[in-house]
Amino acid sequence: MILLRRLLGDVLRERRRDQGRTLREVSAAARVSLGYLSEVERGQKEASSELLGSICEALDVPLSEVLREVSDNLALAESLPLVHPVPTPGPLHVTNVAA
Amino acid sequence: MILLRRLLGDVLRERRRDQGRTLREVSAAARVSLGYLSEVERGQKEASSELLGSICEALDVPLSEVLREVSDNLALAESLPLVHPVPTPGPLHVTNVAA
Repeated sequence: MILLRRLLGDVLRERRRDQGRTLREVSAAARVSLGYLSEVERGQKEASSELLGSICEALDVPLSEVLREVSDNLALAESLPLVHPVPTPGPLHVTNVAA
Repeated sequence: MILLRRLLGDVLRERRRDQGRTLREVSAAARVSLGYLSEVERGQKEASSELLGSICEALDVPLSEVLREVSDNLALAESLPLVHPVPTPGPLHVTNVAA
């Protein structure tokens, strides 16, 4: 399952970096803790709607634009086939041709 | 501030109703409690990314499509002027015309 918070975190981090701003600057402007913003950007924490709004305001980017970008990235990810590891029947027999 | 969870709840509820399905049906299919789904639809609870994914699967609608619709609704709402209540200078003097 593709998780919204991962995609959202990626877009927020990219926007911040495009503006050449640090986690410290944006977290202060958004009045959220640096650790919280960092976790949101890494997709490790769900941002509440209120704090997501504050982060977007601090980045001076409309939330609708962030969601549009997330939606586009997600549509692309949804269209890609899932890659499953190929099951192997048993231990591989590797011949070291360099030997 | 326009809250993501409200707009998200509206879109999820509309999709469910368009399909003529009950809260009970969709909550069972998504393996979430009926109360939780109801609160998410009313914008009273933040849906975790995992449960949002489950609800979209239960509705058989890609999450990207839901987010696109939320983004479109939000863009429209962002373009509208905010309506502030008009401050009144003091207590209102109400004349009961029926008396």
